[in-house]
Parts: sequence; C-alpha cells; structure tokens
Amino acid sequence: MTSLPRRLSILLLAAWLPAWAALAADAPPPMIGFAAQGVGAEAALEGRFDALLDARDMRAWLERMSSEPNHIGAPHDKANAEFMLEQFRAWGWDAAIETFDVLYPTPRRVAVDLVGPHPYHALLVEPPIAGDRTSARTKGALPPYNVYGADGDVTADLVYVNYGMPDDYKELARRGVSVKGRIAIARYGAGWRGLKPKLAWEHGAVGCIIYSDPRDDGYGAADAYPAGAGRPAQSLQRGSVADMPVYSGDPLTPGIGATKDAPRLERAAATSLLKIPVLPMSYQDARPLLEALRGPRAPGTWRGGLPFTYHIGPGPARVHLVVQSDWALRPVYDVVARLEGSAYPDQWVIRGNHHDAWVFGADDPLSGNVAMMAEMKALGALKASGWRPKRTLVYASWDGEEAGLLGSTEWVETHEKELAAKAVAYVNSDSNSSGLLGAGGSHSLQRLVNEVAAGVKDPSSSASVLARARAAAILDARRGGRDADRRLARSLLDGGDLPLDPLGSGSDFTPFLQHAGVPSLNFGFSDDEPGGVYHSIYDSFDHYVKIEDPDLRYGVALAEVAGHTMLRLADADLLPLRTQDFATTVARYVEEVEHYAEGLRSETADMHRLLDEHVYELAATGPDVVGPPAREADVPFLNFAPLRNASAALSASAQTFDAAYAAALADPARLTPARVGAVNETLRRAEQSLLGADGLPGRPWYRHLIYAPGLYTGYGAKTLPGVREAIEERHWAEAADYTIRTAAALDAYRRALDAATVALR
Amino acid sequence: MTSLPRRLSILLLAAWLPAWAALAADAPPPMIGFAAQGVGAEAALEGRFDALLDARDMRAWLERMSSEPNHIGAPHDKANAEFMLEQFRAWGWDAAIETFDVLYPTPRRVAVDLVGPHPYHALLVEPPIAGDRTSARTKGALPPYNVYGADGDVTADLVYVNYGMPDDYKELARRGVSVKGRIAIARYGAGWRGLKPKLAWEHGAVGCIIYSDPRDDGYGAADAYPAGAGRPAQSLQRGSVADMPVYSGDPLTPGIGATKDAPRLERAAATSLLKIPVLPMSYQDARPLLEALRGPRAPGTWRGGLPFTYHIGPGPARVHLVVQSDWALRPVYDVVARLEGSAYPDQWVIRGNHHDAWVFGADDPLSGNVAMMAEMKALGALKASGWRPKRTLVYASWDGEEAGLLGSTEWVETHEKELAAKAVAYVNSDSNSSGLLGAGGSHSLQRLVNEVAAGVKDPSSSASVLARARAAAILDARRGGRDADRRLARSLLDGGDLPLDPLGSGSDFTPFLQHAGVPSLNFGFSDDEPGGVYHSIYDSFDHYVKIEDPDLRYGVALAEVAGHTMLRLADADLLPLRTQDFATTVARYVEEVEHYAEGLRSETADMHRLLDEHVYELAATGPDVVGPPAREADVPFLNFAPLRNASAALSASAQTFDAAYAAALADPARLTPARVGAVNETLRRAEQSLLGADGLPGRPWYRHLIYAPGLYTGYGAKTLPGVREAIEERHWAEAADYTIRTAAALDAYRRALDAATVALR
Repeated sequence: MTSLPRRLSILLLAAWLPAWAALAADAPPPMIGFAAQGVGAEAALEGRFDALLDARDMRAWLERMSSEPNHIGAPHDKANAEFMLEQFRAWGWDAAIETFDVLYPTPRRVAVDLVGPHPYHALLVEPPIAGDRTSARTKGALPPYNVYGADGDVTADLVYVNYGMPDDYKELARRGVSVKGRIAIARYGAGWRGLKPKLAWEHGAVGCIIYSDPRDDGYGAADAYPAGAGRPAQSLQRGSVADMPVYSGDPLTPGIGATKDAPRLERAAATSLLKIPVLPMSYQDARPLLEALRGPRAPGTWRGGLPFTYHIGPGPARVHLVVQSDWALRPVYDVVARLEGSAYPDQWVIRGNHHDAWVFGADDPLSGNVAMMAEMKALGALKASGWRPKRTLVYASWDGEEAGLLGSTEWVETHEKELAAKAVAYVNSDSNSSGLLGAGGSHSLQRLVNEVAAGVKDPSSSASVLARARAAAILDARRGGRDADRRLARSLLDGGDLPLDPLGSGSDFTPFLQHAGVPSLNFGFSDDEPGGVYHSIYDSFDHYVKIEDPDLRYGVALAEVAGHTMLRLADADLLPLRTQDFATTVARYVEEVEHYAEGLRSETADMHRLLDEHVYELAATGPDVVGPPAREADVPFLNFAPLRNASAALSASAQTFDAAYAAALADPARLTPARVGAVNETLRRAEQSLLGADGLPGRPWYRHLIYAPGLYTGYGAKTLPGVREAIEERHWAEAADYTIRTAAALDAYRRALDAATVALR
Repeated sequence: MTSLPRRLSILLLAAWLPAWAALAADAPPPMIGFAAQGVGAEAALEGRFDALLDARDMRAWLERMSSEPNHIGAPHDKANAEFMLEQFRAWGWDAAIETFDVLYPTPRRVAVDLVGPHPYHALLVEPPIAGDRTSARTKGALPPYNVYGADGDVTADLVYVNYGMPDDYKELARRGVSVKGRIAIARYGAGWRGLKPKLAWEHGAVGCIIYSDPRDDGYGAADAYPAGAGRPAQSLQRGSVADMPVYSGDPLTPGIGATKDAPRLERAAATSLLKIPVLPMSYQDARPLLEALRGPRAPGTWRGGLPFTYHIGPGPARVHLVVQSDWALRPVYDVVARLEGSAYPDQWVIRGNHHDAWVFGADDPLSGNVAMMAEMKALGALKASGWRPKRTLVYASWDGEEAGLLGSTEWVETHEKELAAKAVAYVNSDSNSSGLLGAGGSHSLQRLVNEVAAGVKDPSSSASVLARARAAAILDARRGGRDADRRLARSLLDGGDLPLDPLGSGSDFTPFLQHAGVPSLNFGFSDDEPGGVYHSIYDSFDHYVKIEDPDLRYGVALAEVAGHTMLRLADADLLPLRTQDFATTVARYVEEVEHYAEGLRSETADMHRLLDEHVYELAATGPDVVGPPAREADVPFLNFAPLRNASAALSASAQTFDAAYAAALADPARLTPARVGAVNETLRRAEQSLLGADGLPGRPWYRHLIYAPGLYTGYGAKTLPGVREAIEERHWAEAADYTIRTAAALDAYRRALDAATVALR
C-alpha cells in the first residue's frame, strides 16, 4: 500500500519539475580544491564511478546480511564481518579485521509485572508478522533490553515522567510528585534514550521503563507495519543507555583502545554505566501500567495516544522490574580496508558505517553499509582499471555501534596519534531510506557537500538531491518563524548554500570529530515517516524493500554522495575546505549564545516578578494542584567580548585565506609541491586546533569546543558547548572559563589559517 | 474526586496570597461616573446588595429548574418561565412574559448507519450514569440533533474534514479529496458548529456528521464524567446549525419581531437555514465510521484521540444519514421584569440570561440564570427597604437562546426603536462555573468592569476576582509570545487594566450590541476544564454541584460582578464610560489589520515564489501525495489612511472628553441637570453611531462596524469586521469601501464625544 502512492508522487514530481532544479548537464560543475583544468577529469571519474554502482548488488548484500540477528557476539555479525573481509579483498582492497574486547552485558533474565492494583505480566515479545519472513526467525536474538542498564530486582510504585527530560522533572515538582524510591516510566522521544534512566536515577528512582507511545511512532503517526510505517502494538525499541554524552566506546576503557591487554576500569568505576535497572516496552505492554496510574493528570503536552486520560501517579500502579545480565567481555570486529594514495599515501580520507544491529538491522545500519560496500566495489574496479586516488582511502565497517559506538571509538582511541598525523576527513553513514538528503558535519566542508549534492540526481525526479533538500529546508525554516529562520529561508531561496547540521552524536562520527578533531561528515536520506520499526525485529529486509527504499535507488544515491565526497577529498589539489563557511557559522553561534544568555536574563527577571507577585497561584484553576515553577538564580551580565573578538578575527582571516586559496587554484603555476604540502598540512590539522586540552566540563573525553552532543539532549548537537551548556545550567564561572577556552581555540584555528595564507604567497 | 484537589488548591492559594492582590478594604474604591461624595453611599449599597445574595437560594432554584428537559416547547421550559414570573413579582418587580412564535423544527426521525464495508448502526443515545439522577429521567427530551439542519435521506461515501473549517478544505484539496456528493464528518471545535455543515454544503457535500473527538473534550483532556470533566464515550453535543453569522433569531423573521402577526418568509427564502441534513454524534458512534476510512492519512494536526491512524477517505466507509423533522412554529417565553428608575425612568440598564436548555441545562444556562435571579431578589429587597435605582433596571430571562438567540433577538427587534431611545447598556451572562472571571464587551465599559472586578472577592482566596483574572491574562500573554503579547503582559504586570475581550457571538448580547448598538458586556467564571458535558444530558444538577461550582460560591461572585455593574450603570452621575479605552483599543485594531494586510502581502509574494520554483513538490516525501497549496491572488497595497486619520482624531477627542468628564465630576457644582442630561444622552447614543446603515458585507442584520462574530469563526469575534474580513477573503474593493465606512462610523462617534465635551463646558 505504501509504495504505490510513493511512486505516484514521484511521477507527479517529475512532471512538475522546474528548470532551475534540474541538473545543469552542460555547465562544468564547480569543484572546490581543484584547479580548473582538473575538473573535467574528476567529473569523468565520478561518471565512471557512478556507472559501476549496482542497486542489485546492494539488495543482495542487504538480504544476506540481514538474514539473522547481528548484535555483538551473534555468530552472524561475525560472519558478516568475514563476508565483507572476503569481498573487500576480492575487490582489490588491503583489508583486515581489527578486534577489540569490550564490556557487553547480555540479559539472562528480564521481567516486568504490574503487581497492583490489577496484575499484568508484560509479554516483552514481538510476534511474527505475516509477510515479514525474518520476524518468525528470531532464534538467537537477545531478549529486548537496554544495554548497560544495571542489574536489579525492584518493586515500587510507578510514576509517569513523560519523555523523562529535565523540564519534565520541573513539571513533576510543580505537582508535588517525586520519583524517589519509585519506578519511572518514560516514553521514547525528545532526547537520547540513555538520559531517561540517568535522570530518573539522579532524581532517586530505583528503576525505569521506556516505552514507545503510539502517538509518537505508532498509530498516531502512521498505520502499523505492514500496512504502513507505524510501530505495531507489541513492537519495542531496544537500545543503549550508556551515558554516551560523557564518553562513547567501551565503558571500561575510556580514552584508550580496548585491545586485549589494555588496562581496564572496574565496572563500578565506569562512569558511563547506568546505576538502575531499565527495560524497553511496547505500548501494548505499557497500557495496563499507565492506565492504572492515578494522581494528578499529566499536563496536556504529556498526553500520548492511548485511549484514556494519562495520570502521573505515583501509584497505585505498582511494578516489579527485574534485569539480570551476563557481564562478559566480548569481541567486536571492525573490518578496515585501505586503497593507498598515489601522491599522498600518508593523508587518509576515511569512510565508515557500522554493521552490527539490534536484531536484523536491514535499515539500521545495513542500508548504509551496503551503499558503502557498493562504493568500495566501484573504487576497486576503478583501481583495477589503473586509477589510484592521490590520497589514501580508508573504508571501515564498524562493529558494536549500537551499544555505544564501540568499534569506531576503540579504533580511534587505538590509532589516535596516527589519525592526528594523517586523517584528512571522516565520512559517515548509517541507516538510509528514500526521500531527502540529510547532511551534517564540520562547516569547513559545507561548500564541498553543496557542490557534491548539486551533482547527484535524485532518484525520484530529475532534480538534484541538493534541490530537494534545499526545498525542504526552505519550508522547514518558514515553519520555524523566528527571525533567524526567515533569514535562512530567504538565503536558501536566493540560492545560498544548504547549511550543514552541526553534529551531536548517535553514530560513529563522534570519536573522529569530537574526540580526535577529524573534520567529519554524516550523510543519509530519509523521509519524515515515523520509523516505527526502529530497533525492533521488524527492521527487516522485507520491511526495507516494502516501506523504505524498494529498489535501493536511494542506496545508489547515498553511494554517489558519499563516494563523490571521498573522491574529491582524495584527489583535490588543495584540501576542499572553505573556511569562511566555518567562520560565519561560528559567528552565528556566538550571536545565538549571547542572545540566549540575554533572553535567559530577562526571562529570569520576569519570572522572579511573577513569583513575587504570586501570579501562578492566582491564575491556577481546575482540579489539579499545580504550584509555581521553582525559583532560579539571577543571570548576571556575561562577558562575551573574547568570543566576539576571536570570531571577528577568524572571519577576517578566513576571508583572506579563501581569497588566497582561490587565487592559487586559478594560477596553477603557483601550486608548487612545497606550497601545496605546507597549505594542505596546515588545513588538515586546523580542525584539531578546536580541541580543548581538558575537553568539556565534566567530560574530558569530548574535546571539540565547537560541536558536542548535548549533556541533556544526547544525540542533539550543542554548539559552543562549553559556553552554551554552562549558561543553560547557570554555571556562571564555568561559562566565563569556557568563553576564554573557546575563544583560544578559535584563535588557534585562525592562526592556522594565517599560516596557510602565508604559505600560499 | 474532582472537588477535593480543588479545595486543596484553594487552601494553598489563600496561604500564598500576596498583599498586593488582596482587597484593599480601607481605601475608598474609585468609581467611574460618580462624584466623590457619592462613592461611599454606592459602596454601602453594594455591601447591602451582597449581603442579600444567598447561595442556597441559587442551589434550590438550580435543582428545581434543571429537573426536566428545557428545550423550546418543553412543558418544563414554560413552567420555569412561569415560576420566574411569579418570583419576580413576589420580589417587587413589574414583570410579564412576552411571547414570540418562532420556527423550531424538532426531529421525527434521525438515523446514521455505516452501510459498508462493515455495517454499524449508530446508537445516538446517551445512557444513564450512576450518581447522575436526571440522566435516567430523559422522558420528554428530544432525540439528539442539530436544529435547523435540513431534512434528508442520503447515502454516500464518507470524508473526514477535521474541524471542517476553511483551511481544512485547502488541505483536502492538496490531497486531491473532495466532499462533493459525499457525507462530511467533522469534529467539534475550532469554530462555530453551524459553519461545519455550511462549508460542507458549499463544497458540495450532501450530508454532514459532527462528532466529539476524545482528544478535544473526552479522555484526551480529562477523565470521563463522573470521574472528571471529560465527555463520556456515548455523550454528544447537540446544538444549532443556523447560519447565525448572517443573522440571529427566528429564521423566518430577520430584522423584525416574530410576533403573532408578523410577516414571515417562506422557509426556502430563509437564508439562515442549512441546506443539507446534519447530525451530532458521540465518539463511540463515530469510531467505526472513522476507522473504516482509507485514502490519504489525515495531516498530523487533524489526528484525534481515537486509537488508530486517521484517514481522510473518501470511503470505503459509506454512510446512510436520515433526518426528518416537524417544522412547526412554536412559542418562546421571555420573562421581562422592570424596576423603575427614580431619576431617569426612560434610561434602561438591561440585564439578561437565557433559561432554555438543550436538555436539563444546569450549567448552560441555568447556572447564570440563578445568579441573575439572586440579583433580582436582592434588588427587590433593597426596593422594599425604600431604595430606588436612578435609572430603570430591566431584567430578562430569555427563551430559545440555544436554537439561535431567538428570545433575545425577537425582543430586541420588536423593541428596536424604544431601545434606541432608552437603552444605556446590556449586561449578559450564560453558563457559569468556578475559576476565573471572563469579561467581554464594549471597550468604553472597560474601566467600569475593572473597578467592579477589583471590588469583588474571589471565593477561593482573599484576592479580588480582578487579581486572579489579571494573573491568568499575564500567563496567557506570555505563552502567546508575539510582540503584542509581550506588551500586554508587561502592561498587566505594571497594573494596567485587564482588557475586555471583544464580543463575537454565542449568547444573547449579539442582538443588543451588534444589531441595536447597545453597549454590552458579557460575564462568566470558568476554569480551563474541557466542558465534556456541554449540550449533553449530563449537563445536570448532579454534575454541576460535583464538578462545576459545588456550593454555588461562584454563582454569588457572578451576581456580585453583574449586580455591581448594573448598580453603577443605574446610579452613576455621568454614564460610566471611559472613551479613551475604546479609542486606544480601536487604534490597536487598526494597527493589527494594517499589519495583517502587510503580512498577507509579503506572505503571498513569498508563496508565489515557492510555487513558481516548485518548492512544495521538491520537498514532498512519504507515502501520501500532497500537492502544493493553491495559488492565491496578489495582495495590493491598501489605503489605511482614512482609518488611521479617524482613529487618531478619535483618540484626541476621547482624551479631551475624558479630561472634561473627570473635571466635571471633581466639581459637582457643574453637574447641573441640563449638563448631565445632555452629556448622558450623547454618551448613551454614542455606540449607536458605530452602526453602519447597510451593515456588514452580505449580512446587513449585523450593523456594528467594530465588533462582529466572524463569518468563518462564528462565536469568535472579528474586530473592524468589514475591513478585516474583506482582506481575509481578498475582496479588495470591499476592503476599501469598508475602510471608508468604518472610518465614517468612528468619525460619528468622535463627533458625539466632541458634542459631549462642549456640553460639559
């Protein structure tokens, strides 16, 4: 049912397609980093590369690799690694499997029972669905669980905490409800899963349940699979609850590779491990628990899609929650392949996607992995025809991403020095679907991505993938409605570059970008469908080809976007960075943070007046008792001058550098090996100057001072995180400290640009 | 269950109460219109009035009057009129019943059947609920229906149209779905009920169903009655579907009183009558119909609270809808009582509330009616003690409001000339509950209302009802987030007057204000609970004293607010209007309309660019086919200068007048009978100068050029309606025409003020 209208939509789109959105087939595409005379050859190379991509390959690999469970330790996950190793070698790559030993608990016993007022035993089982073949072949799959939750056997009253995010606890407090000594039940969404039990624990809860509310990814969004993309009643979302915003990778070896003999922490000392038991749940299982809650009504925005009035509790719903795990070290298998550069073998352009999954993982992660494999096969064929990249290509299929970016993190930690000396960039992908290109990453790569995306045809139309993504960004910005949104919509309509999303976390770019300072990108196509099979057994091959990308055409598009990006990074005369994009983006972030602080200051002052004048109490009506919000500390005026000065200087230097860079490429006689070597080495290391020696407050593993996953958002990015989060958390001294540190990092980056400008003269 | 937490909340509020919000018992209250030496006597009079109000009276009347069905033609509705007549006379009022004969169809047969793909016969019955005594005593109640829907017997495919408002049809069009030849099913909410079938008919539908979605007033908002204030599964909302925004009152006698011998239109010529059959429905009955729909998914904001994915159709759900009515003329009984003024018997201060109901009507309307009765009893007792109002008090309990303001409209139309010559103001109430004072009306009365509300104690605290309403308005404005909202929040925090809401329609003030130009007010207390028994059999005495206002304490508060307002209007030396409040409000409306036109112009230009560049098609993803929005006409620059000039002149004149008014009151020697007579007569007629001779575009019955119910909102007010709606509907010539007409009305009002200023010299 779903694919028919999608095809209709495609036909309509093709008919409506405007001239401006079509690919300009004749005009030579601009290529940042290439001297003009090299552009034609590179475009021809990309044409040959594209012709070697085969959707049928991808479909066959996808079906094979998603045929059995693929979690860490599953025989089939290892078999997939070995299958890839064999393929990569057959395609002419220098490949090997690199193994790490990571702490990976697997459940021995999990159970949730409502013990009162009406008993209910949670099924915690996803039944077979007709037409989804692997859903009946779950032998070897782990029971549903949240990895890195603590062992425990607790019985306590239940409290509904909405999404379980910090603001939700403020609302609970206004209603006089605490989770202390109780079990919190949170719905998935609005923030990184691992924050939900962590915050519950910080507020005193003894256990946590995370369920999928039908309003968010079930029938409230779409008909249940197989009719549509919605989550079936008994489906549940597995997932890691490691405290990933503190550090990713093996909980026992933060900062160092989990090699066989690496020194390891005691489990008790591993700060990324959760302290209470937690389990995921379907809405069918959650319903009797939620329906048994009384106490205050949930606030309006807390109410989900189940057909009753949501209450907060505590109780009378009383729950017995058991998690017992086998806390073993287990191996993860990274498959790493190299195609050596002809000119600059010690400059590495790195590409990655993970291969482990929660169960079958056809979408997450294998849809992205097979696109990467197609790139490798095509590059191997180009190599066989005599071509070599100028720089070395490193392609990796990571293991253990789902548990907490284990395979990629351990590899980066193991090779940290080598990466500092050699890495040019890292290009990541993960799940892929049909629809619109999503692109995030280091903003110095923004122009490169726009040029690449302008040259890749959207499979559903004759437009480029850039034209479609830009159109969606225009409509998104218009929906936003703020001044900044209006400016963005206007800029995009006027042909301005599509901005890259800043990267937070949630996939394997994190150790590269935020720990090692390697400029990184993340690509993937998606529509706005609810992802109702995410981390369930129904993320299957049958699901993928029915609902996501029937002919793997968007798999081909991903391989083109990522492959062209890799080729240009590998072959460009000067590394394809446009530093003004980074500088203007940073300037915007500085403005944002300053604006945020100013808003917080006036908002806090207003709030104090409302509290002093008891406005909340006077305005309260209705049967629920809702007290005033808690009083927050006054916000002082903060000194943003260091950031402003650093940002202004950076903008000036970037402008000068980019002009010198363009001038050099326009006059290839000036591109002497000495000049090119000096400039590229300086550019290659520039992003590393954005790392802070001590990392971010409370989380030294995260060293990037411009991009980080939010401590209280998880996947969501925080930019200028040291400063921004200090203000959000009202740590004024820390905000002042990180204003200085961040300004220093920007100054270091700026000095690198100045040096590169000198080198170009 | 509900009343316990509410009491808790009250206790907390009392404990938290700040000094500034308490009633200042010692300071003499300001009283607009009174010379300083009269203020003490008036305050003492109000104290005596308050002491005569008795909640036990109200409770007894409420129980008696809501004991049987009270629709037009029901024996008990007539009995209530006769009971009141008897009481009013016993309390010393000169009272009579005035009867009109109105077209009032009652259903002989109503039925809804889902005939395919799975048959379902709609129950259309509200069953008894334990603890709600009258719910088992519905003998004599009419079957559920929407009065003034057409007769019909139709079978057609079903289409879900969300709230059935104009924008919903635009979304349907983007999905290629039409209601032509089909039956539309709309949910209650977002606009006047009568617009739903009217718009369905205008789009070609042959029938309409209006159901109560649980998300809006059912379990999505509160536990179902009797546990909470939510609508039970089988409960449904009756109501009128007359085209009230065109004219209110008897459909056969627009503009003239429906007396026995009045000339009457043929039914076919009555433009307020709907052209297709329509029925209301519970969500239990609607569920099988909605669940059987396929076709495109409903857009996100269209999805209600039923536990499945909402689709639009058309079909395969196919519905058979039957409505057959008895189209008889029936009598309505207005009970009208007078207490003659001692000084100015020909100046009438009018008060009204209706007494008819859809079934028992304890809340709607009897809760307001019994408060009005308590005022009358207290005023009668004051009269018995020798007091007389200076001006004549006219109190009326209207019949037939529910069907379309029949009793009040016919009375106003019958007495139109007398009202023009005598009416000072009209004060309305209707349903009343506990919580916050809501006040709407003519803005020249804004200061009076603020002064009155500052002097009435909130029953749940020691604050004034003004302090509580102001607190809620501050929080509301903060939630709004626009610049105008921020300015309002700041002004309120700084002690500025609480603005009156502009009046649209939905109760008996409409014929007074919008047809006859009588300055009007509407009062009522409410909380933010969902009103899940509205227009159902569960709007009962048992419900009222369990959920709404257990001890009728807010009934007393309403009687105090309305009673004090009436007393001050009756006794003031100069009529208590502050014309600057009107002038500044009009200036704000003029700004708003101009801002709206400017926004519409730039938004339309942007939209044309998006359409030209096919942005919508390029951004479309997902399985549903959603085309671009329809192209709207360009917006020209409009000439707002006439309105600006009239508004500026009005502001200047109002300032001058208010100064002269204050000076005269400060020097009572100047208040000679001749001066007072001239000024009051000019002030009394000022609002009438805001009527346009030809009324509003397409609806000459609505003559007020500043306030009207929106043609496409119904109850919701449109200010400067001739101009605003012309712009909204893109009728540019009409906008220009009504800019001139509205400016002329403001000029006429301004000239009246100038004349009054001269008279005061």
